[in-house]
Amino acid sequence: MDLLSIIKGRRSIRSFQDKEIPEDHLLAILEAGIWAPSGSNIQPWEFILVNDSTLIKKIKLLSPGLYGVPKALIILCMNKKRTEKAGRLGPSLAVMDISMAAQNMMLMAYSLGIGSCPIVSFNKSGLRELLEIPEEVDPVLMISLGYPDEWPRAPEKRPLEEVVHVNAYGKNLRR
Amino acid sequence: MDLLSIIKGRRSIRSFQDKEIPEDHLLAILEAGIWAPSGSNIQPWEFILVNDSTLIKKIKLLSPGLYGVPKALIILCMNKKRTEKAGRLGPSLAVMDISMAAQNMMLMAYSLGIGSCPIVSFNKSGLRELLEIPEEVDPVLMISLGYPDEWPRAPEKRPLEEVVHVNAYGKNLRR
Repeated sequence: MDLLSIIKGRRSIRSFQDKEIPEDHLLAILEAGIWAPSGSNIQPWEFILVNDSTLIKKIKLLSPGLYGVPKALIILCMNKKRTEKAGRLGPSLAVMDISMAAQNMMLMAYSLGIGSCPIVSFNKSGLRELLEIPEEVDPVLMISLGYPDEWPRAPEKRPLEEVVHVNAYGKNLRR
Repeated sequence: MDLLSIIKGRRSIRSFQDKEIPEDHLLAILEAGIWAPSGSNIQPWEFILVNDSTLIKKIKLLSPGLYGVPKALIILCMNKKRTEKAGRLGPSLAVMDISMAAQNMMLMAYSLGIGSCPIVSFNKSGLRELLEIPEEVDPVLMISLGYPDEWPRAPEKRPLEEVVHVNAYGKNLRR
């Protein structure tokens, strides 16, 4: 599958089959994450892989944004001790780095036939307690993973001609 | 090239050849951007493609983070009117959506042999004036594009065993 097909084929999945993900596929997804770019090479990320089904059920209770019963979750966290090295802009750069890592992971998952969904609506302090996340580490984003019940159709996309401006804002792309 | 090779091969490029990028490749890179996931399908992005060399020189003067002379720039902006629809969390979600779009673009560029670099250090008000960006649109991130003078070696990466925690923070991955 070429890259543009992977990028265009990925969907946010909210309903999963009861089928385990092979461990080497989980590792490939995690590895894709660490190859994201990182401002000043800070690599502010910590990734918590959750593949214990009891723990996933508990996390579901405190995550209104988490739909379906995924086989695994990856919690992408910001290590605030690392972001300090990047000065005042550190935390906002770190959110970008972590989002790029998440996109790498979701593309990698899709290329292996695995569905994913990015989730930001969860109870941080509950999650912190459940996963023993220390004060200096901040959970930013969660990704659910599993084989989808179905691959839904793409949501409506704003066309390129509307989104792209050429050499000045408002001068839209003409094709 | 398989996806993991693309993800691992991409580098931040800061020195470019004097060689034009074909327009269809620029369009493929921009298209990769609009296929990023977007919370509540807000699609908060506006992409300004700059391929006018005089304009690129002017942008360089107000962008300390921009190295080399790229053949094109894409300024990824947040449309604040669109983020309002997502409520209080809108702007922080939008930064994640835009970062994921940027990662799609940089991977797409690399798969076409084109180098890129994400840049956050630029003078926003100067850029606003130069590109006629209205008040309700906020430039978040810039990507430089061009054929690299060379593909540098990968920066040192924190190993997976350090970054990944399994089912609880601090319980590191064992392989």
